[in-house]
Amino acid sequence: MSSFGIDDLPVRDELRGKSPYGAPQLDVPVRLNTNENPYPLPEPLVERIAERVREAARNLNRYPDRDAVELRTELAKYLTDTGKYAVGLENVWAANGSNEVIQQLLQTFGGPGRTAIGFEPSYSMHGLIARGTGTGWISGPRNDDFTVDLAAAERAVAEHRPDIVFITTPNNPTGNAVPPETVIALYEAAQAAKPSMVVVDEAYIEFSHGDSLLPLLEGRPHLVVSRTMSKAFGAAGLRLGYLAAHPAVVDAVQLVRLPYHLSAVTQATALAALEHTDTLLGYVEQLKAERDRLVAELRAIGYEVTESDANFVQFGRFADAHEVWQKILDRGVLVRDNGVPGWLRVSAGTPEENDAFLDAVRELKKEQNA
Amino acid sequence: MSSFGIDDLPVRDELRGKSPYGAPQLDVPVRLNTNENPYPLPEPLVERIAERVREAARNLNRYPDRDAVELRTELAKYLTDTGKYAVGLENVWAANGSNEVIQQLLQTFGGPGRTAIGFEPSYSMHGLIARGTGTGWISGPRNDDFTVDLAAAERAVAEHRPDIVFITTPNNPTGNAVPPETVIALYEAAQAAKPSMVVVDEAYIEFSHGDSLLPLLEGRPHLVVSRTMSKAFGAAGLRLGYLAAHPAVVDAVQLVRLPYHLSAVTQATALAALEHTDTLLGYVEQLKAERDRLVAELRAIGYEVTESDANFVQFGRFADAHEVWQKILDRGVLVRDNGVPGWLRVSAGTPEENDAFLDAVRELKKEQNA
Repeated sequence: MSSFGIDDLPVRDELRGKSPYGAPQLDVPVRLNTNENPYPLPEPLVERIAERVREAARNLNRYPDRDAVELRTELAKYLTDTGKYAVGLENVWAANGSNEVIQQLLQTFGGPGRTAIGFEPSYSMHGLIARGTGTGWISGPRNDDFTVDLAAAERAVAEHRPDIVFITTPNNPTGNAVPPETVIALYEAAQAAKPSMVVVDEAYIEFSHGDSLLPLLEGRPHLVVSRTMSKAFGAAGLRLGYLAAHPAVVDAVQLVRLPYHLSAVTQATALAALEHTDTLLGYVEQLKAERDRLVAELRAIGYEVTESDANFVQFGRFADAHEVWQKILDRGVLVRDNGVPGWLRVSAGTPEENDAFLDAVRELKKEQNA
Repeated sequence: MSSFGIDDLPVRDELRGKSPYGAPQLDVPVRLNTNENPYPLPEPLVERIAERVREAARNLNRYPDRDAVELRTELAKYLTDTGKYAVGLENVWAANGSNEVIQQLLQTFGGPGRTAIGFEPSYSMHGLIARGTGTGWISGPRNDDFTVDLAAAERAVAEHRPDIVFITTPNNPTGNAVPPETVIALYEAAQAAKPSMVVVDEAYIEFSHGDSLLPLLEGRPHLVVSRTMSKAFGAAGLRLGYLAAHPAVVDAVQLVRLPYHLSAVTQATALAALEHTDTLLGYVEQLKAERDRLVAELRAIGYEVTESDANFVQFGRFADAHEVWQKILDRGVLVRDNGVPGWLRVSAGTPEENDAFLDAVRELKKEQNA
């Protein structure tokens, strides 16, 4: 019995030999590997969360609001205030992290016998969740500089006629944004091919030099914009993702959502954070400045750097990226090897954390040149 | 554009014309429809939740413990203390409600090309989540008194060779428990047929006259016992479900779990509740007494009542159960029409709520006899 393991269980064939997804959780002085916001929530917000959760806990014996009406209303206000496009409760849906939002979209519009496409390298969970929902995954192309190769992407959409097209902007792990014209063109290609859904993953949009693509929702009922509170709101631990789309899309995902999927404490905590949007967006401005500094300094040191509109920076090139990852780790700084050959990714931390990282890679460059 | 609806979207064919699952959320004086625990959490626990969430919120910019080690350790202690069988961290997995636990099990062991069976009427989400994960659903038989017809169930398992067998005990919505011998026999039938996984859903076990089936895990690596904090812990709003099984099962579900699926606030709140287990189990004793009173009084009034080991009671029989449901609602009491022809389900509330319910059905009986 002691030697009984996963392989002795009747797990699905495609799971055999696989490992759970996730970055190594290592105990290191400087962790710049998962694009977390380095700034803890301000103490008044921490108090407000305790207050709202206390209130929610008094009713915890009851199921939560299944439709999360108050939360979705406040998320809609936030999007309207910052996205240059007015949305309401009926346009917004929320779930446990944008991963669950994406899973619900795949269960609704993908699934067995259907396919989804992403332009890789991109957020690897799109493909993993696709597989987890039985949706066929198509790896679409990018240019060598990690921009979307529009002509090739249009050809791929026309050829494969996927049911869902994922566009991540700013893209993770490369950092660069996708121009609105490219999204519009891919939306049109997708409609011509099937018509299919187009999901624009804007997890990092608050850090972008440009605007959200939210206004593209106008007249495009097959477009979905997905968001998260993990990054700009500094609430990775909260697991709150959301989407904006035509009300019919919001109706449709409710056919697959698990009833009461969003707990009363999650709703209360998210509502508290939304009361402090201005403060949190202030941190975003600091992080954007630090991100720009990382890009500039890495280039000054002599590294190649991909344009970044996110709270992280992709840098290279390395003959053996994993070896460099280990050398940076040996200097007490954890960055991410996302498996993009020749490149590593570093999250923008506090100025001190970024200095520690820059010192480490400066040393490496000197060693390399010595 | 205003008339654009779900049917204009490319949703999966099997979702067309479907409605989202969920009991009507009506504003009624006495709500006895969703098997919630009527007792709010005690104030010291509410304060402890606020305290632990405040602490978690100070680190909310970081992703939560992906493996929920502390929480799973405490859940294992609770199971060991109350279940007459020792389990540890390695035997326990937790997710957002037992619905998500079941979804993960279906994604791991079910899915396209595979099937699951349940003995109906039973918890309808088993079948709904099966369909949501592309798993074929087989509706197995029950006797007229809602006990599991073992011979017929064994035949169904042998014939269909399902990949997953669901056994709900105490069963929802009927209330009766499944004897351990039946579970053992079905486990053996399932192993002979495939071998397949057997999931014992013990959401209501703390209210049972009998013991948990946890000790059956010994020597049965294909057995899974699923649990929830929604009922006995009075925390429906928390959405915390968990399972106990062989460590290989816990390893296997991690292949499909969304990374960081369990938020830091959920983990903190559940840990606070687990500190107050003794108080909460005291409420369970009160509810068991009230449940027994409901059974006795309903029978005294002249209704048929199914044996109940849960915090709810199934009563009948009615020529038109939905009409009776409406008449009880007209008297300010919301019970549940689960679609079992001739029967309704009432949750055990506070003594006052149960009195209100009993008054209502006593009136109805008089009208009927008049």
